[in-house]
Amino acid sequence: MTQAPNQRVLLASRPDGLPRPENFRIVEEPVPVPAEGQLLLETLYLSLDPYMRGRMDDAKSYAKPVAIGGVMEGGTVARVLASRHADYAVDDIVLSHSGWQRYALSDGTDLRKLDPMAAPPSTALGVLGMPGFTAWAGLLQIGRPVPGETVVVAAASGAVGSAVGQIARIRGARAVGIAGGPDKCAFVRDELGFDAVVDHRAPDFAQQLERACPRGIDVYFENVGGKVWDAVFPLLNEFARVPVCGLIAQYNELPQAMPGPDRLALVMREVLKKSLSIRGFIQREFAGLRPAFLQEAQEWVRDGRLRYREDIVDGLDRAPAAFIDLLQGRNFGKLLVRVAQ
Amino acid sequence: MTQAPNQRVLLASRPDGLPRPENFRIVEEPVPVPAEGQLLLETLYLSLDPYMRGRMDDAKSYAKPVAIGGVMEGGTVARVLASRHADYAVDDIVLSHSGWQRYALSDGTDLRKLDPMAAPPSTALGVLGMPGFTAWAGLLQIGRPVPGETVVVAAASGAVGSAVGQIARIRGARAVGIAGGPDKCAFVRDELGFDAVVDHRAPDFAQQLERACPRGIDVYFENVGGKVWDAVFPLLNEFARVPVCGLIAQYNELPQAMPGPDRLALVMREVLKKSLSIRGFIQREFAGLRPAFLQEAQEWVRDGRLRYREDIVDGLDRAPAAFIDLLQGRNFGKLLVRVAQ
Repeated sequence: MTQAPNQRVLLASRPDGLPRPENFRIVEEPVPVPAEGQLLLETLYLSLDPYMRGRMDDAKSYAKPVAIGGVMEGGTVARVLASRHADYAVDDIVLSHSGWQRYALSDGTDLRKLDPMAAPPSTALGVLGMPGFTAWAGLLQIGRPVPGETVVVAAASGAVGSAVGQIARIRGARAVGIAGGPDKCAFVRDELGFDAVVDHRAPDFAQQLERACPRGIDVYFENVGGKVWDAVFPLLNEFARVPVCGLIAQYNELPQAMPGPDRLALVMREVLKKSLSIRGFIQREFAGLRPAFLQEAQEWVRDGRLRYREDIVDGLDRAPAAFIDLLQGRNFGKLLVRVAQ
Repeated sequence: MTQAPNQRVLLASRPDGLPRPENFRIVEEPVPVPAEGQLLLETLYLSLDPYMRGRMDDAKSYAKPVAIGGVMEGGTVARVLASRHADYAVDDIVLSHSGWQRYALSDGTDLRKLDPMAAPPSTALGVLGMPGFTAWAGLLQIGRPVPGETVVVAAASGAVGSAVGQIARIRGARAVGIAGGPDKCAFVRDELGFDAVVDHRAPDFAQQLERACPRGIDVYFENVGGKVWDAVFPLLNEFARVPVCGLIAQYNELPQAMPGPDRLALVMREVLKKSLSIRGFIQREFAGLRPAFLQEAQEWVRDGRLRYREDIVDGLDRAPAAFIDLLQGRNFGKLLVRVAQ
């Protein structure tokens, strides 16, 4: 075979706050050769997601950190280039977790075959993949909106937020999105059909959010943290639910950088007064519900009730810069790196 | 009738931090006379509970504040002195919410008849009343301990905490109590049978708590807040549940007095990393479960598996001082004021 060399993005050093390009190192290595029972994958799309920031730290978390010198991890859609595995044939398209590299070997255990006729394969990394499932599970299992309630979500044009608001509407709730800048806000309102959208860059953001939620907030799907929380928190209704799936605004903060005032006492007081529920979760907790999600979400995507937008960057060498942009909210839609055609 | 005058404790002014005696005013008024359909109650026991501190503030909460000049509210066990109500006879013993006063009228709608043969009537204000139900509902509906898990509760010799730990043990969990001083700790360990107890006054309190919870904490029943939280929080296991029913250590803090560091960002990060659940509640949310609670708890009390201790103060005029002591943890067991014999 006359392939390009195996381009791989390694973690060169652990970032101190926001990652910088020098925290990554791009290397070229020989393409690996599958042994009996293995198959060789070529990455078509690499998913870039905020959770990856946590893997770059050496802190105790729900998943092991990437080792220094290790390949950055991530979900991929890949094509089978060569197979010595009975269940997979050349040109099969699969969902994998082969990370930031062009080629990878697999023994087949961590793969799911995709049907390119059922949905574009890239959706397996977005609206029909981990981000969509995070939205579906967190909203319906923890947020549990009932018709007429108000659901607020930030990063509303992003992979998770866009699904949260649309699923809330499908379930009869009122969806209020928060996004950054007029283009994203217009997309959330006009393309995704949210009931209202508020620009967090507006100087009177908190007042605008209050006006957009005249009956308060029943579910706040927390995926950003930071100053959005401060605007949302006073608007939470009695018995409000706060599923917490991400804190992108905080990922780059250093633990020691926490000047006062101490909001914890105030938050706990409100948790008590309003019988609030704050619940962190990782989508894999609900793994048993994935088939139910896929069935519902595929139908919603087909009939146009669940829309999505992809932000595609070409070339694996651009993944580090695209990821740094993502952490600053500079992407617009589900961020994917197209590694090969 | 030749009764004593109706002694009543009014809210004279709103406290600024910890209440002081001058925030209360004791008055004597004529004993009211029941009209047709009413009955006259004489208070036997008045319950003093931390939630009453919140009622003294003019802040928005889950219940209306007591008005300046109004009678302090509270649960009572009372005797029917005179009845013009078909359902009640003289000498019936009832659970009421007639507040900090010796005599009160009732139309019967807010009463529950007590059977003095089934259990001492004072228990209707403690282990078989609101505090016991708060423990039962918060632990079993929100905390949901499974056998072998570790349940931690502070104020473990108090009305709620003592029941939390004992019910946790009945359900097969390991109960670790936190209490203040050697007498309370000995009571929690030796009389209530907790698996371990830690004195929060010890200089190495956090280290002692860690040693008492070698497998971490699965349920932290939060009823105090403050520094206990800081010791508990790092020990919470993945998927730990934190029912929040009170924050007695914070009730007297002023909202503006919150020097840094800001612990909220750290707490939210851990909520996410560990899939923690923090859930405020008021027992009345679970009112439909009261009959189930009563049936279980009465049986547990009868067979000695659910023990309780009462701290009885004689005379309504001593209620303000006893209440101020309660807020500083100076009571030992369920605090009751014996108003009449």
